[in-house]
Amino acid sequence: MGEHVTIVEVGPRDGFQLIVPLIPTVTKIALVEQLYAAGLRRMEATAFVSARSIPQLADAAEVLAAARALPGLSAQVLVPTQRRCEQALGAGATEIAFVLSASEAHNMENVRRTPRESVDEYRRLIAVLPAGVGVRLNLATAFDCPFTGAVAPDDVLALLDPLVAVRPDVEIALCDTTGRATPERVRALFDRAIARFPDGTRWAFHGHDTYGLGVANVLAAYDASVRVFDSSFAGLGGCPFAPGATGNVATEDVVWTFGEMGAATGIDLDLLLDAAEAGAQLPGALPGGRVRTALRSRQCVQALAA
Amino acid sequence: MGEHVTIVEVGPRDGFQLIVPLIPTVTKIALVEQLYAAGLRRMEATAFVSARSIPQLADAAEVLAAARALPGLSAQVLVPTQRRCEQALGAGATEIAFVLSASEAHNMENVRRTPRESVDEYRRLIAVLPAGVGVRLNLATAFDCPFTGAVAPDDVLALLDPLVAVRPDVEIALCDTTGRATPERVRALFDRAIARFPDGTRWAFHGHDTYGLGVANVLAAYDASVRVFDSSFAGLGGCPFAPGATGNVATEDVVWTFGEMGAATGIDLDLLLDAAEAGAQLPGALPGGRVRTALRSRQCVQALAA
Repeated sequence: MGEHVTIVEVGPRDGFQLIVPLIPTVTKIALVEQLYAAGLRRMEATAFVSARSIPQLADAAEVLAAARALPGLSAQVLVPTQRRCEQALGAGATEIAFVLSASEAHNMENVRRTPRESVDEYRRLIAVLPAGVGVRLNLATAFDCPFTGAVAPDDVLALLDPLVAVRPDVEIALCDTTGRATPERVRALFDRAIARFPDGTRWAFHGHDTYGLGVANVLAAYDASVRVFDSSFAGLGGCPFAPGATGNVATEDVVWTFGEMGAATGIDLDLLLDAAEAGAQLPGALPGGRVRTALRSRQCVQALAA
Repeated sequence: MGEHVTIVEVGPRDGFQLIVPLIPTVTKIALVEQLYAAGLRRMEATAFVSARSIPQLADAAEVLAAARALPGLSAQVLVPTQRRCEQALGAGATEIAFVLSASEAHNMENVRRTPRESVDEYRRLIAVLPAGVGVRLNLATAFDCPFTGAVAPDDVLALLDPLVAVRPDVEIALCDTTGRATPERVRALFDRAIARFPDGTRWAFHGHDTYGLGVANVLAAYDASVRVFDSSFAGLGGCPFAPGATGNVATEDVVWTFGEMGAATGIDLDLLLDAAEAGAQLPGALPGGRVRTALRSRQCVQALAA
């Protein structure tokens, strides 16, 4: 390998949003700073969304302000609508992650809009976006929808056509929201998307580990030449559609794997594991991942382990 | 895909051996029967080893007898020495899994023999093995040793030379004992072994999920044309070298993944999940895997899951 890969830590958004007990804002900020100290330079720091649907993220402005105070940290904030985008900009956001779902059922559930209506909203958002504000697109349910099952690659590409046309040079994350994608499907969709949009679009993969394929799917995206990966420290995130199931692929599992394969992430695994340990101990957290327990458990020896 | 893959359920051996509280023999037999009912037709039912080092498997003879009573079940038993093999045969074993480690440090720890001494023992064992008794070779630490780290593929192949020469047509499982192998290393070692021993040797992969690469490594072995995979229901097994860390790749994760990819396993996932739930609830068990919690948890819906 020897390549450089970029990890986007999404725990402060995708991870925290599914934890029911409110995490004190100071704790969130301390964790963001701890992740930054481990070398993470891109984070989805929070989301500007309905405090009624997701009370956990009601402190978005304070968390964003703390993240923006960290030198060299690219802190993107998730927004599902133009109105939320304006709210984020008002709070000082300089990196916007606009989310829409490839699945109509999922997009209706999230924002009561069809995917095409969200595309129009994205177009309007971009039209009035101040110069210098970064944009990232998160295309949720790009492989599978919790309501309607497998999402056809043709439908995803057809939705990407108008999205890429709005601004070809954004970074687009294809999100395996439910974790049901398999490596061959991840590889195939990225291969087709990369071939179809050659004009400067950057690609990212956002995966979940719901079915144990989290790292396998990351590696499939890597094989398709993707070099930007979303992950969550301690595997925080859970799966909103399967309570009790683990969620986002764990940042430490991804960092460990790329380290073993000789790809540079710029992240200090020991410091990351400290942050993951802290995240795993948050009240109400459902930690996932493997590397944390594997590397932080007392070492011993037993005979006859084949 | 559309291919057929064979799963060897090793939970009753590799899984149970790491559970400290003694599992009642009737419970072990009930679980073996439940796994059989789910469609599993190959199992590593138990091991004939020192009851002092592994008291959990002291009831090997009874468990083996119960497994042999199941029509069409191939029940292999692990043996580390010729003496244990004779003991197994005396108990009615018709399928022997001889285990040795590629790593000298690990083999010394397990059986106080060098790998070459274990090769000689295997040769003597085969020489006196009654006709009709099946043989499988489990080559432990074929990728990584808990004591000395990475194992060089050249050393593994050099050890396979005399092993394959003893009897070329056995099934040989290359075991990632510690779970530290990466997909590229799994693929590379199987590619070399398959090319080097073309005379009827069958290959199997025995993987652990210690670092989250369990299914990814299974798929890498599949890509190398391996079609026989060891796994443990509920991911039982733990990692003897990292207490608290999860162990063998979970049978239900492997079965689910191959099902999603269109490969036939002949296993009923629902019945397997019942068995996995039962295994996960064994006192002292450290269950792993993802699919069990993903599919057996209450379904619900939450907005804004990207």
